[in-house]
Amino acid sequence: MRVALAQINTTVGDIDGNVRKILAALSEAQAVDAGYTLFPELTITGYPPEDLLHKDHFIEANLDALELVASACSMPTLVGYVDRVGDSLFNSLALCGNGMVLQRYYKRRLPNYGVFDEERYFAAGAAPGLTELGGTMMANTICEDIWVPELAAEVVEMGAQIIFNISASPFHAGKGAEREEMLCERARANGVWLAYCNLVGGQDELVFDGRSVVISPDGEVIARGKAFVEDLVVVDFAPEGRLGASGDLAPVMTAEQEVYSAIELGLRDYVVKNGFSDVVLGLSGGIDSALTAAIAADALGAKHVHGVMMPSRYSSPGSISDSVELAAALGIETRELAIEPAYQALLDTLEPAFDGMPADVAEENLQARVRGTLLMALSNKCGWLTLATGNKSELSVGYSTLYGDMVGGFAPLKDVFKTRVYQLARWRNTQDAAPVIPQAILDKAPSAELRPNQVDQDSLPPYPVLDAILTHYVEKDDSGDDIVAMGFPAAIVDRVIRLTDTAEYKRRQGPLGVKITAKAFGRDRRMPVTNGFGG
Amino acid sequence: MRVALAQINTTVGDIDGNVRKILAALSEAQAVDAGYTLFPELTITGYPPEDLLHKDHFIEANLDALELVASACSMPTLVGYVDRVGDSLFNSLALCGNGMVLQRYYKRRLPNYGVFDEERYFAAGAAPGLTELGGTMMANTICEDIWVPELAAEVVEMGAQIIFNISASPFHAGKGAEREEMLCERARANGVWLAYCNLVGGQDELVFDGRSVVISPDGEVIARGKAFVEDLVVVDFAPEGRLGASGDLAPVMTAEQEVYSAIELGLRDYVVKNGFSDVVLGLSGGIDSALTAAIAADALGAKHVHGVMMPSRYSSPGSISDSVELAAALGIETRELAIEPAYQALLDTLEPAFDGMPADVAEENLQARVRGTLLMALSNKCGWLTLATGNKSELSVGYSTLYGDMVGGFAPLKDVFKTRVYQLARWRNTQDAAPVIPQAILDKAPSAELRPNQVDQDSLPPYPVLDAILTHYVEKDDSGDDIVAMGFPAAIVDRVIRLTDTAEYKRRQGPLGVKITAKAFGRDRRMPVTNGFGG
Repeated sequence: MRVALAQINTTVGDIDGNVRKILAALSEAQAVDAGYTLFPELTITGYPPEDLLHKDHFIEANLDALELVASACSMPTLVGYVDRVGDSLFNSLALCGNGMVLQRYYKRRLPNYGVFDEERYFAAGAAPGLTELGGTMMANTICEDIWVPELAAEVVEMGAQIIFNISASPFHAGKGAEREEMLCERARANGVWLAYCNLVGGQDELVFDGRSVVISPDGEVIARGKAFVEDLVVVDFAPEGRLGASGDLAPVMTAEQEVYSAIELGLRDYVVKNGFSDVVLGLSGGIDSALTAAIAADALGAKHVHGVMMPSRYSSPGSISDSVELAAALGIETRELAIEPAYQALLDTLEPAFDGMPADVAEENLQARVRGTLLMALSNKCGWLTLATGNKSELSVGYSTLYGDMVGGFAPLKDVFKTRVYQLARWRNTQDAAPVIPQAILDKAPSAELRPNQVDQDSLPPYPVLDAILTHYVEKDDSGDDIVAMGFPAAIVDRVIRLTDTAEYKRRQGPLGVKITAKAFGRDRRMPVTNGFGG
Repeated sequence: MRVALAQINTTVGDIDGNVRKILAALSEAQAVDAGYTLFPELTITGYPPEDLLHKDHFIEANLDALELVASACSMPTLVGYVDRVGDSLFNSLALCGNGMVLQRYYKRRLPNYGVFDEERYFAAGAAPGLTELGGTMMANTICEDIWVPELAAEVVEMGAQIIFNISASPFHAGKGAEREEMLCERARANGVWLAYCNLVGGQDELVFDGRSVVISPDGEVIARGKAFVEDLVVVDFAPEGRLGASGDLAPVMTAEQEVYSAIELGLRDYVVKNGFSDVVLGLSGGIDSALTAAIAADALGAKHVHGVMMPSRYSSPGSISDSVELAAALGIETRELAIEPAYQALLDTLEPAFDGMPADVAEENLQARVRGTLLMALSNKCGWLTLATGNKSELSVGYSTLYGDMVGGFAPLKDVFKTRVYQLARWRNTQDAAPVIPQAILDKAPSAELRPNQVDQDSLPPYPVLDAILTHYVEKDDSGDDIVAMGFPAAIVDRVIRLTDTAEYKRRQGPLGVKITAKAFGRDRRMPVTNGFGG
């Protein structure tokens, strides 16, 4: 049997567009003589549809679309959709074929942790979904189902020789390997074939990495789809062993490459799926804006990226020249806008109100807000989406200005700690014949340049220390005591925790960005703003 | 038996503070010779603790606190806390007495809809919780449990004569009456006493309204706690009938009074629990800023409210004089800051970039952003929390400037449609000897005053029409077709829906505000930003 895994990039809510993608992929699968085709989880609605699921007419439209897709399916095809039985919705899979829906299966395990809210919407299916076709027993499963050892064991017990899984498994660093290992273990432990079709594409905070796989009963990966792009994975197999030519084995990515690619795809899809073509961002001469510009140029094409240099009285000479060099290497246009006139006008206006009080963060934020206002003016006038360039380290401790450098529709580095920003920048510099990010940008001490001779390390611990503490505090929920016990200085740990808790209100008003760690800010980490717990 | 319902205002995460409140209320209950005391749901952690529950040391601290509270309980006392059994957490109730925990009950029905995410954290309890005391059989329940008819019937079947319920039931308009009706029905249907202790206080987007009640088996409300303030409701009763003096029956509020009070409490608690004392807001001469100022003055005291008038070249003469009159009536201080110099400086800086393109929303937003920047500068310099004054109508259709009039730590009117803004303003004007909101502000046509002679109705349908459409679309998830079928013009409905969908990205970056409707923006309505569904 020739199976095709149609790893397509759906869009949440765009039912018509998703149906067109399904039909196009079906034609492709037919063209290569596939006898069985799988699509990702919730193919018709896109994933995750969130509260669109509360709209009856959305559910209706999805059911109508399933009928349309089914009528076009001559070969057996697994399509994800939302079924409704009485008042209950199910995260469902339809086995289509002969122009109709032949069988329905309802997801049995509903993730309701991390970024997932499936129990908010769905009832859990109760029954396994087995199908016999030409003497082969196949079991249908959806995403989380395959992460549960018992469910695979149960269907194999019932005679399944192949387990199909349609998935929407979001990426984080290392997730590809982790997932593939789990799937190999599941196949091996049960002596069963696995064909796993994963979604690809960006959706708000999430990016789905594709990498669909077919795995043999001895746990060997027979075929692997590409990472972060659409793919049609074709493999010939029979339950009793592999037959004929298998599909391609897309290469495994390095750690830097996969994270970079995830952000690139997440950014591209956010921009394009929201109807934009171009982005604008501030180029400060620092590493964050340099990496953001590089990713944007890779994601959208250099001519769709617009850099703005906005020096102030405190900017270093390199802030302009390094940005100019970066822009030339990337091939993006730049312009320079002075912040001094507006900054001075604001200071003059505020003079009576400030009433001789000493300069403090208020003046620093004013400069950042003039920059944010200028970027948003270009965004409004030219229809460009603004990118915020902040990283996870500064977003954690609130080392950023709300309505200033935090303005933007998307923050590509939102979930990237500063130490990883450097790793990604160095990796990107190895990808072309010549580096795109000037060495001077990699070498200079990070600085907000909002007061004379300011550097980040005046206010924050060195980034390797800060990022290590934050990894424990933000991503692992370790306590301050735990972290101190690991050998970090208590005063620094206490300060980082206090800053992180206090900055929750800023994060609530920041732009979306791609989740690339096991715990990102946003839907993944739901902390109260009003919070009396000290750590 | 004399029962005390200790309707206290806990703070999420502030375990030490909550314990102090519990001990103080216990002393009060002892002072009035109560024999049984109830506290609200999750008394020790505050509600909802959200992802604090993922911190092991938070759970530990809550368990330690329970021991401390139990050791202070001589009389039987019901306290809410989080229990841990193996890897599972339970939303729990401890019956304390004789200085120890006598019995534990685990919430059986976990709400996972609307603003609730309890299945993200908790396992559901499996068993009813009955206690016999002096020949009376009592059943313990937690919040959602009592909304489920079967659970009450089950414990009554098992012999319960009184059902205790500890709750954290968030407010929306009309919820008090709806809840009380449900409780009366539950008591009557099962011929059982009910003693229901509800949380009071604001927590981020939620406000809990108190109004704890004791209800007789024939469905009569015997005692009712005050709305929106802490209270100790004391009532004497025996299962076979009411004995002696009952507790007070706090009066029922009018529709306007309860919504106004909810916003007032939500604002006060957000400000105070986050460590602020003062707020700053822009006074435009319009109804939104006038009502916001009035609520802030009522919530925090007039001397803690700072009004800023920021006229522009497009401001009407009344924008200043009406605000001055308002401020005088409220007793709040004002200052005037010109936006013209900074606005002109920004226009000059942007001139080459704008390159002769016609004036559009970019120039309008620039003015709003200068205002936002000035307010935030005062906030930063003086430590005042900025209030955004936008209402739900404009937030729905995106008739507001991100980083402009949307700046702020809190948006009191976030969930208040414009038509209700007028109702609340008129109601507030009846509460003092003289109106506090000048009639001119109530009479003038709403306008953003960002271009010459602009009024809201140039861009939007009349507010009664807009708000009716939005109620159906946003709060009831009706489709465009449904709404047109109700008699609204199709072109207007389509436009309102398109604007509302498109503005999702702005709402994601807006400040928190109190939920006062059945469906508020925020945790209550989780729509994707990237969304291809047309309505």
